[in-house]
Amino acid sequence: MEKEVRVIEVKRSIFEDNNKDADRLRQELKEKNVFLLNLMSSPGSGKTTTLLALAKALKGRVKMGVMEADIDSAVDAETMQEAGVKSIQIHTGGMCHLDADMTRQGLYEFGMDDAELIVLENVGNLVCPAEFDTGAVKNMTILSVPEGDDKPQKYPLMYETCDLLVVNKIDVLPYFDFDKDNMEKYAKLRNPNIEIIYISAKTGEGIDKLANWIEKETKNWIG
Amino acid sequence: MEKEVRVIEVKRSIFEDNNKDADRLRQELKEKNVFLLNLMSSPGSGKTTTLLALAKALKGRVKMGVMEADIDSAVDAETMQEAGVKSIQIHTGGMCHLDADMTRQGLYEFGMDDAELIVLENVGNLVCPAEFDTGAVKNMTILSVPEGDDKPQKYPLMYETCDLLVVNKIDVLPYFDFDKDNMEKYAKLRNPNIEIIYISAKTGEGIDKLANWIEKETKNWIG
Repeated sequence: MEKEVRVIEVKRSIFEDNNKDADRLRQELKEKNVFLLNLMSSPGSGKTTTLLALAKALKGRVKMGVMEADIDSAVDAETMQEAGVKSIQIHTGGMCHLDADMTRQGLYEFGMDDAELIVLENVGNLVCPAEFDTGAVKNMTILSVPEGDDKPQKYPLMYETCDLLVVNKIDVLPYFDFDKDNMEKYAKLRNPNIEIIYISAKTGEGIDKLANWIEKETKNWIG
Repeated sequence: MEKEVRVIEVKRSIFEDNNKDADRLRQELKEKNVFLLNLMSSPGSGKTTTLLALAKALKGRVKMGVMEADIDSAVDAETMQEAGVKSIQIHTGGMCHLDADMTRQGLYEFGMDDAELIVLENVGNLVCPAEFDTGAVKNMTILSVPEGDDKPQKYPLMYETCDLLVVNKIDVLPYFDFDKDNMEKYAKLRNPNIEIIYISAKTGEGIDKLANWIEKETKNWIG
């Protein structure tokens, strides 16, 4: 049996309003010359560790800041702050995602005059964050090897909405059954244009490639 | 800055209605002598692999069935079916959790006359599933080693609502920085009564302990 739950109308109108608001925010980012990158993944896939490695790699190349979104704690923003990266913590008050208005509140608080690249670390979740356009210029998702190669099959919308798929923790590939070909097949089925970069945030492998991608996209946007 | 997003009233009433409905469902389960176990975790923590190992361990001890909830695919129910475990797939139509009414629809479709234990494999997500009481008798969460020891800090509600925390993938402990003491400290801070069992669904370590816990709880409930 495959019982489908109907999408209720109130939800649909929430999405429509948010989409318009996200477009307005992107326009504002364009005027301010700020590239906003929305980073999504499961909990524990290595978002914060990847951002720490990126901040190091991009030093002197792109002025970078980070907005950490979380239900409750301030662990991630503290970690970034300690590493010398300008960051703020956004508490979602129990919500499992950020919408465009919440993102705008964060950006105003952060200040857009002194950054070229702001990374929004979304709540660790593969479902809701993919449904709400934050107003970001590009979307990126991290899939870590231990999570398994079937994630593009199970969370299709996440892969449809992302421009870049970063596969993290490749240093532990020998210890897991992770079929790269299978994973890539389904990711590209969902999104033929998705770009894929393999990294280990822990060992640093692939971080240069990721940093180059982000620098290129940032310069393209801010002109 | 720590910007709190207000909880809107409509959400609150959704929760209240659901809580009452969940209590009604538990009553119904009691009358039907069925123990419903709600299994929650991040995507890729090993829910399905753990259930496969459990089905094997509980064979001849408890009549077990599985309801797999997913956004879209039927991968998990197919896996269970192939292993000879009675299972159905519930599609949530894009929703990131199950509420009591969706769970009831699944149970009616599954049939409650020929099972003592039904495990509901909830959508892979640490936020929304913890907010919605499914009507289950007990809640269990899996935290896999590669996700990191900070999950109880970051997703407090999940740990508050769970009776049992299963730590999976302990076979890869040597390859990750996972501080057991830190993890246990925060899990117990959130929920002093939480029970913790360490397993590797892959190697089978600890599965007997988990099977014993589930058998005991099932027999307690169905009397």
